[in-house]
Amino acid sequence: MKKQYIYTPGPTPVPHEVAAAQTSMVHHRTDEFGECLARVLEGLKFVMQTGNEVMLLTASGTGAMEAAVANCFSPGDTVIVFSGGKFGERLVEISSRFGLDAVVVEYAWGDCADPAELEKALEGNPDARGVFLTQSETSTGVVNDVEAFGRIVRGTDALFLLDAISGLGAVDLKTDEWGVDLCIGGSQKGLMTPPGLAFVAVSDDAWKASAGATLPRYYFDLQAARKAQSGSPPQTPYTPAITLVQALDVALRMLREEGLEAVFARHELFARATQAAVGAMGLRFVASDLSRAFVCTSVWAPEGLKSGDLVKLLRNEYGVSIAGGQGKLKGKIFRLGHVGYFDMFDVIAQVAAVEAGLKRLGYGVAIGCGVAAALEVLAG
Amino acid sequence: MKKQYIYTPGPTPVPHEVAAAQTSMVHHRTDEFGECLARVLEGLKFVMQTGNEVMLLTASGTGAMEAAVANCFSPGDTVIVFSGGKFGERLVEISSRFGLDAVVVEYAWGDCADPAELEKALEGNPDARGVFLTQSETSTGVVNDVEAFGRIVRGTDALFLLDAISGLGAVDLKTDEWGVDLCIGGSQKGLMTPPGLAFVAVSDDAWKASAGATLPRYYFDLQAARKAQSGSPPQTPYTPAITLVQALDVALRMLREEGLEAVFARHELFARATQAAVGAMGLRFVASDLSRAFVCTSVWAPEGLKSGDLVKLLRNEYGVSIAGGQGKLKGKIFRLGHVGYFDMFDVIAQVAAVEAGLKRLGYGVAIGCGVAAALEVLAG
Repeated sequence: MKKQYIYTPGPTPVPHEVAAAQTSMVHHRTDEFGECLARVLEGLKFVMQTGNEVMLLTASGTGAMEAAVANCFSPGDTVIVFSGGKFGERLVEISSRFGLDAVVVEYAWGDCADPAELEKALEGNPDARGVFLTQSETSTGVVNDVEAFGRIVRGTDALFLLDAISGLGAVDLKTDEWGVDLCIGGSQKGLMTPPGLAFVAVSDDAWKASAGATLPRYYFDLQAARKAQSGSPPQTPYTPAITLVQALDVALRMLREEGLEAVFARHELFARATQAAVGAMGLRFVASDLSRAFVCTSVWAPEGLKSGDLVKLLRNEYGVSIAGGQGKLKGKIFRLGHVGYFDMFDVIAQVAAVEAGLKRLGYGVAIGCGVAAALEVLAG
Repeated sequence: MKKQYIYTPGPTPVPHEVAAAQTSMVHHRTDEFGECLARVLEGLKFVMQTGNEVMLLTASGTGAMEAAVANCFSPGDTVIVFSGGKFGERLVEISSRFGLDAVVVEYAWGDCADPAELEKALEGNPDARGVFLTQSETSTGVVNDVEAFGRIVRGTDALFLLDAISGLGAVDLKTDEWGVDLCIGGSQKGLMTPPGLAFVAVSDDAWKASAGATLPRYYFDLQAARKAQSGSPPQTPYTPAITLVQALDVALRMLREEGLEAVFARHELFARATQAAVGAMGLRFVASDLSRAFVCTSVWAPEGLKSGDLVKLLRNEYGVSIAGGQGKLKGKIFRLGHVGYFDMFDVIAQVAAVEAGLKRLGYGVAIGCGVAAALEVLAG
């Protein structure tokens, strides 16, 4: 008998009641589904802290990234793209694939994006039509200071596009207050729902830009989504992933009941407990600034250990899924998730699995020290 | 207590064991999920009767239609697009949105596409790079003669793109034998799975064309899907709708166990029973040729009745979802599904609901005559 634990920073654990909501199904052109969709769209506005309409797409988060780009920009548009990890790279790739003139501001993997670099980039590129940023760079554990970026973008004509996929429902995100024009989310992280749904909150400025944007789009046409969603009851232009929408409805209700402040506090607590454990084990963090890094904790593997071996061992021996490194960090780091449906015992179990695994691989620390350090934080 | 019956031609009823498969979840980069995905990809080749690789996408069927177009064609390419219903129109829309030079061959809603019209169109457009056809035009109930079209396309340099979404797993589709280069399917019709997954089987010629095709694509990049899927175990480029893939795995196993011939025979039997009932009720068919129309049966509403009123009554009073008309047939027809997870009692229940509903609306036929006619066919 081996229980399975998904402790990766996406997909994340799904509550039983959310999973169960997938088992029934209604037709998507019924009032019943329309009411469910209406609740979901309201719930998404709630977690995104926005009055903007949120468009729901049946796709991975990457599909919503493409939708944001393809709807609001045209080939040759100058955009400033921050890249300091796998998901920043994806923003660069999408921009380049769609013919945008991307001014790429690279920052070191593990560092935060520097708002001063944005000011410099804007000075050099006053014609920039967009600024693209990743909020939570899941490949390094870094969470960027979106508010500081928003303050700078606000003084320009550029649209502020934010990949908020892994941070949404985990760390604070004031879409409107921080001036995010295109806020991108996914179902499978803080929203505690299986993967397959993605979202874009669209500001008035972004809608205006979309009217003149010439990139071709059909499936991801946000104007078509807007038209369908504005029906009474709201609909989607194409058959959506009905069972996932039903699941998300339940998950969003849970988040509303908990309240956003409590949700963010929970994530911070579990992050600090995990980080205390990592510190106590004498391991080094990938993220240079932990003050907002509450989505996942990236850790350098001990000298001589391929991190993938630890990931494999934990999965095979203990049924515990943690994440290895991506891109240039592959084999070098492992990542401990604490985003979404985690409780204190998940944090303890994950740390215990890492301790046990490291010992099995001959990299033992004083066993129990990580668990003790985590528990100290958790027990308050 | 009101049971719910989804008798629409998509989404279709989901077997309990398929629905239940959504409730557990593994991480998508595990061997366990890789083996599940490998079985699904093999199962899709089985139902599509193809040796070509089948690319799996997290999207509505429309996403796969876009993927097929965006990967294999370039702006200005001449393509011949057959349109005789809502889904043929969608092929035209996508072609036009992506800047293809679409030679549209319209055929009457309710008629089959005529292969002779393809010959004519090819004579006038010998440079055509593609021929686009809908197999099962769900908006009218018509199922086109794909084999006859394939025979003609084979003698040209054009790629044969087929929207097989609603017919897949319901009516015969010999992708390779009939020369289909881009065969498009979805999870929520004959494959008895909730919506959210779509597929494209890609021929060697289509892969060759994709190498030179200049339309931008990222999320729907089939080369990226191919690369990820060719891993051992296979993967997807972006986080897929894991729970839906698990559900599809179960559904495809059920179809394999039943065998394709039995699956097709079942659909034909239920179609003929439904059609016998409609005939006995003295109602008229939308499809002029019923010889392959085994996916759904489209029926003209009796004079003076808005078909939407019947649809609404059946849903509210009996918990039975049937479909109304789409596009120019809205309000004029209703559509009885018999695609996917139907048994003989579903056929009887649907016919009984229509009889009861028509009576309630004052359009009573001799009550019971439809049910009797259906049962006569079903009882063999």
